[in-house]
Amino acid sequence: MEAFPFRHRQRVRFGETDLQNVVYYANYLVYAEVGRVAYLRELGLPYADIIANGLDFTIGEASVRYRAPLRFDDEFDINVRVGEIRHSSWAFEYAVDRADGLRCADMTTVQVMIDRSRFRPTRIPAALRATLQKAKEAEGARPSR
Amino acid sequence: MEAFPFRHRQRVRFGETDLQNVVYYANYLVYAEVGRVAYLRELGLPYADIIANGLDFTIGEASVRYRAPLRFDDEFDINVRVGEIRHSSWAFEYAVDRADGLRCADMTTVQVMIDRSRFRPTRIPAALRATLQKAKEAEGARPSR
Amino acid sequence: MEAFPFRHRQRVRFGETDLQNVVYYANYLVYAEVGRVAYLRELGLPYADIIANGLDFTIGEASVRYRAPLRFDDEFDINVRVGEIRHSSWAFEYAVDRADGLRCADMTTVQVMIDRSRFRPTRIPAALRATLQKAKEAEGARPSR
Amino acid sequence: MEAFPFRHRQRVRFGETDLQNVVYYANYLVYAEVGRVAYLRELGLPYADIIANGLDFTIGEASVRYRAPLRFDDEFDINVRVGEIRHSSWAFEYAVDRADGLRCADMTTVQVMIDRSRFRPTRIPAALRATLQKAKEAEGARPSR
Repeated sequence: MEAFPFRHRQRVRFGETDLQNVVYYANYLVYAEVGRVAYLRELGLPYADIIANGLDFTIGEASVRYRAPLRFDDEFDINVRVGEIRHSSWAFEYAVDRADGLRCADMTTVQVMIDRSRFRPTRIPAALRATLQKAKEAEGARPSR
Repeated sequence: MEAFPFRHRQRVRFGETDLQNVVYYANYLVYAEVGRVAYLRELGLPYADIIANGLDFTIGEASVRYRAPLRFDDEFDINVRVGEIRHSSWAFEYAVDRADGLRCADMTTVQVMIDRSRFRPTRIPAALRATLQKAKEAEGARPSR
Repeated sequence: MEAFPFRHRQRVRFGETDLQNVVYYANYLVYAEVGRVAYLRELGLPYADIIANGLDFTIGEASVRYRAPLRFDDEFDINVRVGEIRHSSWAFEYAVDRADGLRCADMTTVQVMIDRSRFRPTRIPAALRATLQKAKEAEGARPSR
Repeated sequence: MEAFPFRHRQRVRFGETDLQNVVYYANYLVYAEVGRVAYLRELGLPYADIIANGLDFTIGEASVRYRAPLRFDDEFDINVRVGEIRHSSWAFEYAVDRADGLRCADMTTVQVMIDRSRFRPTRIPAALRATLQKAKEAEGARPSR
């Protein structure tokens, strides 16, 4: 149940730290964003295409569990996988691991599909749903890291 | 159950928005920070005093439920109250309301007390616990806003 | 020559600091933004009105001279005044002073007027030019603080 | 005179944009930081080593000239080179180029060497000076890109 099909390597920026000498807590949601944008690109769903189809998504919920601090210049991986898929929303789950494997944070975000003409939630289109579903199934098939 | 004993007015900065023309989702955790720092000051617990006592706190968990967007130049209130108080941690609960009363986000953060000499969780000191407990009781006594 | 007709009080946020225990250097440009938005509102030129007139402005140049650090929870003033006014651009000059008067930074930004229909520089409209010119003259008339 | 000996590829994050659908102007100083940290590492001067030697540096001046906007998901290079070297400070010069070569910004920062025991400016140590000098000479020897 720990399988993540995708990871994206980043390095902690100086400006992401705070006076406690660790990454400021809100920046983990920035890392989640960077991870999901990279994963969507990997799945053949670049954000520009979503917009071009008159759709968009917004974040409905986000949660972070902080486990160990990241510090300036640390390299780390943002692991991403698809969580629950519903009518007009789906979840991404994330694990932020320092390059040596230390688990630093677990996160979840819920994406809500939006119709750009009305700016209201709308059904996830069939093609996107199929891609997310396929990605989710591939996760289950993978051995744990 | 909606009573918040404290609110702190802020205005959305240009740099807090993103290309969707709304406040970027990670910045709500910044607003939570601004609210809790202001509330701790109101409770007579400025952060400098906590540090001066060899203590510190870190965030163990954070969650946000996004309800309506804030936009550039909107004025809004960060409402804060004490949530559950445990052995070495306590929760703050937040509501972000646009100045006209529109609920934009609900948030929770869990603060973990840290002993600065060992950088490990430690029991909440008696004086801080008493202050948090008293603040929590005052919330219950207040009529809902 | 040190007269600033306008100042806007703020307090340093935790998330604005970095591991050197001072405000991260890029955040001074955020403070400049907060100051100029507040000054434009004071001058009767809220950003929404500029946009409503089919105009916008972008920043063409920015410079900061760092003099003394701001730290978490410090209160400070962002002082703003109009600098040089040209055909399609004008300057704002800023001084960031800690609440006790310590000069922390001097800044300049150059705003470039943009026609939103073509996204190209355009002449500053007469009414805005008159307001900026009047604000600039008022500065000269004021005694230094 | 356009030779840059070093470049560091990055991609624009969603959270780095603002409501004008471009990268928020203060974030270019974040890009400068990312570029100089990467260049110092390339020169064999990781920040951790500077700190381990009881030294540090702070930014004394920063300036940006904005030429063309970067947008979400754009790939870009942060080009860095050593500028003027003085007694206790030196400059870095930067060019931010979109991946297709469009020049988006020119920047300069002045680093001031700090003695961590007294937190005051101090002479650039001989070894660091030699490294910066050598990097600067290598720039001159290189053909323009």
